[in-house]
Amino acid sequence: MGDLNSDRLSGPGEFGLIRKLTSGLLRHHPSTRLGIGDDAAVLDYAGFNIVVTTDLLLEGVHFDLDYVPLRHLGYKSVIVNLSDICAMCAVPLQITVSLGISPDMGIHEVEELYNGIRLACNRYSVDVIGGDTSASRSGLTISITALGAARQGQLVYRKGARPGDLICVTGNLGAAYLGLLFLQRESRLSKENPDFSPNPDAYPYLVGRQLKPEAQTDLVDHLLSRDIRPTAMIDLSDGLSSDLLHVCEASGTGSRIDCDKIPLHDETVRFSEEIQASPLVAVLNGGEDYEILFTAGQEDVKIISEIPGVTVIGSMTEGKAGNWLILPDHSTVPMAAGGWDAFRVR
Amino acid sequence: MGDLNSDRLSGPGEFGLIRKLTSGLLRHHPSTRLGIGDDAAVLDYAGFNIVVTTDLLLEGVHFDLDYVPLRHLGYKSVIVNLSDICAMCAVPLQITVSLGISPDMGIHEVEELYNGIRLACNRYSVDVIGGDTSASRSGLTISITALGAARQGQLVYRKGARPGDLICVTGNLGAAYLGLLFLQRESRLSKENPDFSPNPDAYPYLVGRQLKPEAQTDLVDHLLSRDIRPTAMIDLSDGLSSDLLHVCEASGTGSRIDCDKIPLHDETVRFSEEIQASPLVAVLNGGEDYEILFTAGQEDVKIISEIPGVTVIGSMTEGKAGNWLILPDHSTVPMAAGGWDAFRVR
Repeated sequence: MGDLNSDRLSGPGEFGLIRKLTSGLLRHHPSTRLGIGDDAAVLDYAGFNIVVTTDLLLEGVHFDLDYVPLRHLGYKSVIVNLSDICAMCAVPLQITVSLGISPDMGIHEVEELYNGIRLACNRYSVDVIGGDTSASRSGLTISITALGAARQGQLVYRKGARPGDLICVTGNLGAAYLGLLFLQRESRLSKENPDFSPNPDAYPYLVGRQLKPEAQTDLVDHLLSRDIRPTAMIDLSDGLSSDLLHVCEASGTGSRIDCDKIPLHDETVRFSEEIQASPLVAVLNGGEDYEILFTAGQEDVKIISEIPGVTVIGSMTEGKAGNWLILPDHSTVPMAAGGWDAFRVR
Repeated sequence: MGDLNSDRLSGPGEFGLIRKLTSGLLRHHPSTRLGIGDDAAVLDYAGFNIVVTTDLLLEGVHFDLDYVPLRHLGYKSVIVNLSDICAMCAVPLQITVSLGISPDMGIHEVEELYNGIRLACNRYSVDVIGGDTSASRSGLTISITALGAARQGQLVYRKGARPGDLICVTGNLGAAYLGLLFLQRESRLSKENPDFSPNPDAYPYLVGRQLKPEAQTDLVDHLLSRDIRPTAMIDLSDGLSSDLLHVCEASGTGSRIDCDKIPLHDETVRFSEEIQASPLVAVLNGGEDYEILFTAGQEDVKIISEIPGVTVIGSMTEGKAGNWLILPDHSTVPMAAGGWDAFRVR
C-alpha cells in the first residue's frame, strides 16, 4: 500500500494512484472540455463554461475535532472548494454538501457545522443546491462539490505559463500551517499536563488562517475588471513548492523564486522563531494557505502591482533551467516538492 | 439524536434534518433554478439545463464488504447517481468520484473498485471529470456527484402529477431488497456455521439486482424519441411507498395502486414464499430497485404501452382522497411510508 497508509495522500502517493486508477477512462462527450488534472474540471455548454471541483474531508485525516470548532470546519469545507474554482479564474456559484454524521454527534453539533457552511455560502454568494445526509459508523465525513461559471476565454489553466512570466501570489504564505502547528502543540500540552492552560490568543492571525481561510474571489474580480488574463493559475493548498511545481510541469517551464520577496505575516516570523524553524519551510511545504499563485506577462507588471495584496515573488524560466530558490544570501537551492509530511511537529 | 443513529437516515429522520439544516439558506443566483427537494438540482445556463445530484456511500452503513464485491460496489455507486439524473428525464454526462480508502484496503482492491466505476461509465457513456482520493482512518467512503443535461422544457419534476394520471413503473419491483436479504442471510449462516456452504446461485436474479442495478437511461431515450413528457418522475430507491408518496406530496395528489398489477420477478415471488413474507413488503418498503416511477396523462396510455418494460400500476387521484393500495381481494389498505427499517431479517 505504501503511500495509501500515510495521513494524507500527497505527492507521488495520491497523484500516482489517481493516474493509475483513471487510466483507461474514455471521454464520451464533447461537453467535457477538461477532466482530471487541473484545479477543477471544465464543461462547455453552448458558450458557457462550467467548472466543477470536489473535496472529501475525513475526520482524523483532514481535521481533528479536538481543536477545530465545527462552525469553522463547515466554513473551511466550503472555502477549500471555492478556492479551486477561483484558481480557474471562474466565479463560484453553487455547491452540493454531503455529510456522514458520526454516532457521537448531536443535532446541535450538526447545526453548528451547517452554520459554518451557511456563513461561507452567504459570504461568497454561493447556493447550496443539494447533498446527501447519512449516519456514519465512525467519524464525520464531509464531501462538497462546487460549481462555477466563466465566459468563453475567461478560464486560466495550470498549463499556460511561459518563460519570462512573473510569478505572483496573493496575501501572505505559511501562516495556515503554522496555525495548525500551534493548535496541535496547545492540544498536546493540554493533554500531557492538566495544569497547562492553552493560550489561543498568542497567535490569533495564524489560528485564524488555519481555522477560517478565505477564498480569493476578490482576485478574480480584480483580474476580470482590469481585463488581465494570467497565463497560469493554481491555488496554494499543498505548499508553494508542490503547487508551483504543478504549474511548471503543466507549462513545461522552470522557475526562480526570490525568497526575500515571499510575503510573510509578522506572526509567521515570530512563531517560526519560537519553534526554531525557518518560516520558508512552512511556506514551501506547509499548505492550506488557499492563496492564489498566478503567472502573467512582464507587460502586465504595472497593472498587477495595483491589485491589492498581490506580490511578485519570482519568474518563470525555460524548462531545462529547472526550479530554484534564491536565498537571502543570493545562494540558490533547488526547489523540490516537499509535501505535507516533510515538516511535522511530533 | 434519534434517527441520526439509525443505520440509514430515511423517512422523517433524514428529511426532517435536511430541512432543518438547510432552512435559511439563501438563493443568490438566477442560474440556480431548483435546489434541494427533487431527485437532482437544476441549473439554468443560457438555454441549457444542467442537473446535479450527489450520493455519499459509507462502509457499514450503505454497504457491507462481507458480501459486496468491490467491482460491483464501484458499479452501483455510479448507477445510484445516474438513476437520479434519469429521474429528472435528463441525460447523464459526467461524474466526479471521491474516495476515502480504508487502511486495510490494498491497491488491487482500490483498482477493483475503480474497475466497476469505469465499467459503469463506459456502459452509460459517462465521463469521470474529477474527484478526490484520500486515506480514511476507518471504512471505505465513496462520494459521487453526477451531472446531466437537458434541453429547456425536457425536465420532469416530482411535482407535476395530476388527478387521473396513470402511474407507471419500469422493470419489476422488490427484487433488489430481497437480494440483499438473501446475501445477508447467507453471510450470517456462513459465520454461524463453518460447515454451511453458501449458494450464490439460488437466486441469481435477486443477487444481481442488489449488486449490479442499472440506470433507466433507456426509458429517457424512449420518452424523448416518442416525445412523451411524463407529468412527474422519481427513481425507486427507497421503496414504492416512500417514493410514490414523495410524488403525491409534491404534486398535491392522492393515489391508488393496484397490487395485482405490480410487476414481480419469479425469484421475487419464490424467495418471498421461502421466507414467508409477502413480496409486497419488499416492493413497498425495500428500496434500491433503481427503476423509475412516472405519471402520465390517460391520453398517452397507448404510446406508453409500447415502451418496453413499462407497466401501469395505478392512477393518481385528488389529494384529499389519500393514498391507497388495492389488494388482490379488492379490499383497500392505506399506503404509508414504511421506510427502510420496517422490514428487516434479524
